[in-house]
Amino acid sequence: MNFSITKKFRDKQKNQRGVVLWFTGLSGAGKTTIANELDQLLIANKNHSYILDGDIVRAGLSSDLFFNKKDREENLRRIKYVAQMFCDAGIISIVTFISPFTADRKKARDLLGEYYIEVFIKTSLEIAEKRDPKGLYKRARNGEIKNFTGIDSPYEEPENPELIVDTEKQSSAECALAIFKYLKIKKFVN
Amino acid sequence: MNFSITKKFRDKQKNQRGVVLWFTGLSGAGKTTIANELDQLLIANKNHSYILDGDIVRAGLSSDLFFNKKDREENLRRIKYVAQMFCDAGIISIVTFISPFTADRKKARDLLGEYYIEVFIKTSLEIAEKRDPKGLYKRARNGEIKNFTGIDSPYEEPENPELIVDTEKQSSAECALAIFKYLKIKKFVN
Repeated sequence: MNFSITKKFRDKQKNQRGVVLWFTGLSGAGKTTIANELDQLLIANKNHSYILDGDIVRAGLSSDLFFNKKDREENLRRIKYVAQMFCDAGIISIVTFISPFTADRKKARDLLGEYYIEVFIKTSLEIAEKRDPKGLYKRARNGEIKNFTGIDSPYEEPENPELIVDTEKQSSAECALAIFKYLKIKKFVN
Repeated sequence: MNFSITKKFRDKQKNQRGVVLWFTGLSGAGKTTIANELDQLLIANKNHSYILDGDIVRAGLSSDLFFNKKDREENLRRIKYVAQMFCDAGIISIVTFISPFTADRKKARDLLGEYYIEVFIKTSLEIAEKRDPKGLYKRARNGEIKNFTGIDSPYEEPENPELIVDTEKQSSAECALAIFKYLKIKKFVN
């Protein structure tokens, strides 16, 4: 069945264009912090946004999955469809998943097309590990966590992301503002 | 991490309370048609709504699942978490899944709490099979489809749904209006 209310209509109602901001980067790079800053900027600008948070999804929708390559692929397969629904609903969603593999990110891009904006939250492994906000690197180094990105599982850096923010050189507020400005320039928000 | 923008804040921004309308009923009962009517009513009332459609989810998020009892359970497990995110985003979502088993619906209710509104889209099997809008009953009777609800898989009627609409006695517009009025009375919309 074709529903009567289209994405175009919902976009117009919300005075924006629903889109998916796909954050990728190491654990500790600052994805969640920047998402939270950006979300507040968008709300202040009267936009309709939502954070699809990796940790929350891992605790709910993907609680049956582990961190091996196959389960990471399935995790991203699911969230790309959830992001598609939020996009279709006219919402600006901020997806904060490590998403370490190029092939999995490409599948999300293929599905979402023009509504996929890849944002590389860039930080060296050295700095991310020094920050270690959740103590996960330490546990991974001690062998308590397996398949941890950067330690015993690779992170494939994005080759052509729409946007790169470097959290070693910029504050999280500066990073969030750079992404907000991008949305303005591309006319996703007014 | 606790995000700065809460459901309460998003609800206020949208001048409504995000909630999940969980439609349950046989294939052919009219779930999708009523959802489409209700969605239009909500949009006309300046609300922010979205349909989480069973067929769309089956083609995307749950395309790896079949129709046996275990996979039906997993399908509903996933969508209840998606619905939770839409609810948290302040959206009124309309979930149109057959959801034939009481135990699976209860799990959704347990997760969503006060934001779970079960709407029984009531039609006799006889009438649903006569309508057969997608020709699925015919295929199920011919043995081409297995585990089809009402034919070789049971439908457990809701015992205490928040709302019952009878599509043998009311038009889809009347059913949608009844649900809309319920949302008004319960102050989910103004």
